[in-house]
Amino acid sequence: MPKIVDHDRRRDELADTALAIIARSGIRAVTTRSVAEESGWSTGVLAHYFTSSKDLLVASLRRAAEIQGRVLQRYRDQTGSPLDALHGILESLLPFDERRLALSRVFLHFYAESTADDKIHDEISEYADNLRRVVRRSIVAAQDQGQVPTDLDIDAVTVDLVAAIDGLSVHALLDPAIMETLRKRPHLPEDLTGYILRPLQGGD
Amino acid sequence: MPKIVDHDRRRDELADTALAIIARSGIRAVTTRSVAEESGWSTGVLAHYFTSSKDLLVASLRRAAEIQGRVLQRYRDQTGSPLDALHGILESLLPFDERRLALSRVFLHFYAESTADDKIHDEISEYADNLRRVVRRSIVAAQDQGQVPTDLDIDAVTVDLVAAIDGLSVHALLDPAIMETLRKRPHLPEDLTGYILRPLQGGD
Repeated sequence: MPKIVDHDRRRDELADTALAIIARSGIRAVTTRSVAEESGWSTGVLAHYFTSSKDLLVASLRRAAEIQGRVLQRYRDQTGSPLDALHGILESLLPFDERRLALSRVFLHFYAESTADDKIHDEISEYADNLRRVVRRSIVAAQDQGQVPTDLDIDAVTVDLVAAIDGLSVHALLDPAIMETLRKRPHLPEDLTGYILRPLQGGD
Repeated sequence: MPKIVDHDRRRDELADTALAIIARSGIRAVTTRSVAEESGWSTGVLAHYFTSSKDLLVASLRRAAEIQGRVLQRYRDQTGSPLDALHGILESLLPFDERRLALSRVFLHFYAESTADDKIHDEISEYADNLRRVVRRSIVAAQDQGQVPTDLDIDAVTVDLVAAIDGLSVHALLDPAIMETLRKRPHLPEDLTGYILRPLQGGD
């Protein structure tokens, strides 16, 4: 009997290998050769799925987004405190473990790439829109439960929060001191995502 | 008499040309040929200063940072309201005109590059550190004048504000709708940089 190959599954497996390489050694370390070596598949098998490093990176982006999508889904489905969910959503994007390090790195790479590649641009924009939708929904739910003031400009807060988290991820990738600062904030979810952007007030 | 060439000045001129190209057409449009054409110098003259597009981009990064440094210096030297200065500093980083569009694009490019190039990494980190110092100083001055509450965690606010602005720039580059949103916020400095990150409060 011929062996039945689940191509989608193998493709995911190879993208996962690429993400592990990105977390460990960065974007540039992803090549069809390095992924073949690490996954145990021959470069011949690999060539069936990916013809270049760029191909592999795009697959890694999609795989990272898919996994992140599942994380977001869990927060959407939970019935607990919407504010805790918001905390969780934002923290799920900071590069504090291997999954999130790969996610942040691959997204930073494609943020830069998106300026020169329309297809990537549209894909990245969609991920960002989706994230904003999920964040916005949590803020509204938190308002409904009296956890967040109702006089917020929700759209502005959503844009600002998602931007702040993306910016913090980039700075943490860039600077180990920032990474440490973010990690050390006691009760990180409370401290980090427990921030919203509010007008500066006078000091009286 | 031999013509005296001010090489530093010409180098700046060529980097300015590259920045204009970046603002108009993006990072990928910068080549020794395109800069030669736009500046009116021959590729032969250009080759005296820059041997590759990467060279040109690094020069553009430094030139953009130098010009931004002068903008920051003006805010440091001004004797008016520190809070207005903080507004100005943060707004000077959003991609709302040609200078800032080139600045944001070239920084995003090198944020991504910095993960694979130690020299670029150190340079980019230094720019970010410097920006944080300037922002921090404005917050402290605003506190001294009673414009900002004194019970802030200044370091956290500084990290968050600079990250938020960087994130907003990236999202504005990516998404014209976000760019419009940021532009349309009435009294932008009041609205955008008039935000600090504050703990979420209960809605009661």
